[in-house]
Amino acid sequence: MMLEELKIQVLEANLALPRHQLVTFTWGNVSAVDRERGLMVIKPSGVEYDVMTAQDMVVVELESGRVVEGQCKPSSDTDTHRVLYLAFSSLGGIVHTHSRHATIWSQAGKDLPPWGTTHADYFYGPIPCTRLMTEVEINGRYEWETGQVIVETFRERGLSPQDIPAVLVNAHGPFAWGTDAHNAVHNAVVLEEIAYMGIFSRQLTPTLEPMQSTLLDKHYLRKHGKNAYYGQ
Amino acid sequence: MMLEELKIQVLEANLALPRHQLVTFTWGNVSAVDRERGLMVIKPSGVEYDVMTAQDMVVVELESGRVVEGQCKPSSDTDTHRVLYLAFSSLGGIVHTHSRHATIWSQAGKDLPPWGTTHADYFYGPIPCTRLMTEVEINGRYEWETGQVIVETFRERGLSPQDIPAVLVNAHGPFAWGTDAHNAVHNAVVLEEIAYMGIFSRQLTPTLEPMQSTLLDKHYLRKHGKNAYYGQ
Amino acid sequence: MMLEELKIQVLEANLALPRHQLVTFTWGNVSAVDRERGLMVIKPSGVEYDVMTAQDMVVVELESGRVVEGQCKPSSDTDTHRVLYLAFSSLGGIVHTHSRHATIWSQAGKDLPPWGTTHADYFYGPIPCTRLMTEVEINGRYEWETGQVIVETFRERGLSPQDIPAVLVNAHGPFAWGTDAHNAVHNAVVLEEIAYMGIFSRQLTPTLEPMQSTLLDKHYLRKHGKNAYYGQ
Amino acid sequence: MMLEELKIQVLEANLALPRHQLVTFTWGNVSAVDRERGLMVIKPSGVEYDVMTAQDMVVVELESGRVVEGQCKPSSDTDTHRVLYLAFSSLGGIVHTHSRHATIWSQAGKDLPPWGTTHADYFYGPIPCTRLMTEVEINGRYEWETGQVIVETFRERGLSPQDIPAVLVNAHGPFAWGTDAHNAVHNAVVLEEIAYMGIFSRQLTPTLEPMQSTLLDKHYLRKHGKNAYYGQ
Repeated sequence: MMLEELKIQVLEANLALPRHQLVTFTWGNVSAVDRERGLMVIKPSGVEYDVMTAQDMVVVELESGRVVEGQCKPSSDTDTHRVLYLAFSSLGGIVHTHSRHATIWSQAGKDLPPWGTTHADYFYGPIPCTRLMTEVEINGRYEWETGQVIVETFRERGLSPQDIPAVLVNAHGPFAWGTDAHNAVHNAVVLEEIAYMGIFSRQLTPTLEPMQSTLLDKHYLRKHGKNAYYGQ
Repeated sequence: MMLEELKIQVLEANLALPRHQLVTFTWGNVSAVDRERGLMVIKPSGVEYDVMTAQDMVVVELESGRVVEGQCKPSSDTDTHRVLYLAFSSLGGIVHTHSRHATIWSQAGKDLPPWGTTHADYFYGPIPCTRLMTEVEINGRYEWETGQVIVETFRERGLSPQDIPAVLVNAHGPFAWGTDAHNAVHNAVVLEEIAYMGIFSRQLTPTLEPMQSTLLDKHYLRKHGKNAYYGQ
Repeated sequence: MMLEELKIQVLEANLALPRHQLVTFTWGNVSAVDRERGLMVIKPSGVEYDVMTAQDMVVVELESGRVVEGQCKPSSDTDTHRVLYLAFSSLGGIVHTHSRHATIWSQAGKDLPPWGTTHADYFYGPIPCTRLMTEVEINGRYEWETGQVIVETFRERGLSPQDIPAVLVNAHGPFAWGTDAHNAVHNAVVLEEIAYMGIFSRQLTPTLEPMQSTLLDKHYLRKHGKNAYYGQ
Repeated sequence: MMLEELKIQVLEANLALPRHQLVTFTWGNVSAVDRERGLMVIKPSGVEYDVMTAQDMVVVELESGRVVEGQCKPSSDTDTHRVLYLAFSSLGGIVHTHSRHATIWSQAGKDLPPWGTTHADYFYGPIPCTRLMTEVEINGRYEWETGQVIVETFRERGLSPQDIPAVLVNAHGPFAWGTDAHNAVHNAVVLEEIAYMGIFSRQLTPTLEPMQSTLLDKHYLRKHGKNAYYGQ
């Protein structure tokens, strides 16, 4: 695949964000990676969705963070995306939004437990909420450190980014990812859906326990992995 | 009625799901039954709503589960639909969704009590939430067993599927049904509406009792049964 | 004004209900009255909004309830409308819906207190919730008795239907009214708005007291009555 | 800039309110100021958004409140706008709405704490809720006094209207402002977004503390002030 095609994919994935009502104004950014070339394509910073073109997408070197193509500044969250691509080799696309209900869980500083098969169809366990960042991290390379805290969260809890393709950054909002930019947006939509339902499931049953692990296994594994039988 | 007409009805009922905002992506499926031929028409698995045609609908033998027409795999929930048609002879159409507010009650593991005339106009009592499934059921013929647990719920509580045309599958989501595919979708919309209102009625009055049985009778029976006088 | 014009007004007011997202399917009905002729024009029962025409509107004699013009059955809530027109001489139009948030207060069996100037701009005090109806009332002339309980609520509490142009029928839903059909729908929209805000204002401050009566006076009276100065 | 251009800006900003779902009917008004001439342009009172033209905008002398151009009465909230422009020299535009979720916080009489980076990107601390107005203030020059109470709130708490471009008027609703009319509407949209998320963040974690001040600083200052690096 040529980089021009990747730019078009990243543009389309970014445009899908307002269509799925995941973003207000320019809040949100999607990127995708070309692993062979070590390059990442990402939305420019602060450009309105309705005037954005494929040529506005910015190409960034994964290792160095250097802009290698594009007239605009890359999204200010670029360094967070870089850390995630560098640490998690299975990621093909990443999306960051402040979508309302996932952000509510981020602001509340709580993991989103698996409470039903909608969750289990896409996420193989709770969506983790990161720890608060330290003053040093916030005042240092903030966006880079945001990525590091996400990576730490997955490593320390022994979570697989492939099986749990999203995270809630504490007091901030969600990142979701996937095999490509389109799939990352798909997962961000699902996250928003289960975040909404989780708020009110918990209101109805305040002591709600996570769903049975057998049911979580069943639903996740009928759609993912070698024994999947769901879909065409 | 020819099966081609039934396919068109099932297609249209499936397309009504996103229009009524009951589904995200391809989550949701509608079927209808031809009782004389013992055949069921159901949405294919994992096909996008905006490209779906009547010819994509899959014809399945009710008794055997065998696909007798159609190029696509039938919905992975096909066996649940089959069990319901086989056990409940009054059903003409069935719909399954993960609609937000009905699913919230499913995830909370709670029956939806009748709290107003909107409920009573369509459902003659609480919408039952099924028991949790056993490990054996989940690891066995899961989708078939899901149907069995629904049937058990109605039988053990002495409920009539004609008078209560919906169920909340625990930790999963709702199934609704009706005289045909269109009517099943209609009931799914009403369920979503009362599920929404129930969450917040209960928030305002946490100790809320079910509505008076006299009022439930009045509203249900003015629209259903031999003394109905509502509508044209 | 000729009755044909009133039919058009009533049609347009009915069509405004789905546009303001106050109704699902055919749930909801608007009427208007011709006081000189003692006639009321009301939506037909069970007709879909998108096929409804002015000629479908039904003309009913206020005193007798007799249909004097129209091919369709009048709304099954016709007798409730009649009672309200007969008891409250200031009413020119009436609307009944099961709009989500007003219905939530009805189902919870609670008055909606005045908690802000949005409320005070239109309603000069709490929106009352009626008492539960008796078995005799429900099993008797139910729709007529629904109207009677509304009238009783206003009389016993000494409320003016002109100053508080809406009511919450317990375990049912709202009725709103106004100087004509259009104004009744306007008030129904405002009711829905304050019903929504009330649920969550009370969530934030569970012990919330009604707003200051001075502020209620100020806002209501700057828009209504002889010293009004709001608008053009 | 000519006053005609300012009228067009104010018209467009007013029309943006229904597009961003911040207003119902005519509830809401935007103004902008021409500091050199000491004139303010504001929406007329009670005119529908869909028939409003630039020529309907009313020009008001800031100091005297005298209408110097326009056929319509200015918004009844004109005096509140005047007080804010006179007291806060950095304001270029002001918007008042009864947007649902900001109004919920107003009605609950509570400050909206900073609970996440969405808040911190635009508001450098809690959005203050004003004290209740006195009977003398309400019965006196009410709209003028509303402005005075807002100014008092900022002065007594030592808040900068530039850093916190919004306020919650107790039992009423929000005012937001900015460098011009467009920017004021932008801030009103953000306020509504964080007001929504705040309600449910607090539901999930009832004891939720304000976000870390380091993180608040980081996000606010990367977008505002001399060291800003966010956006193009």
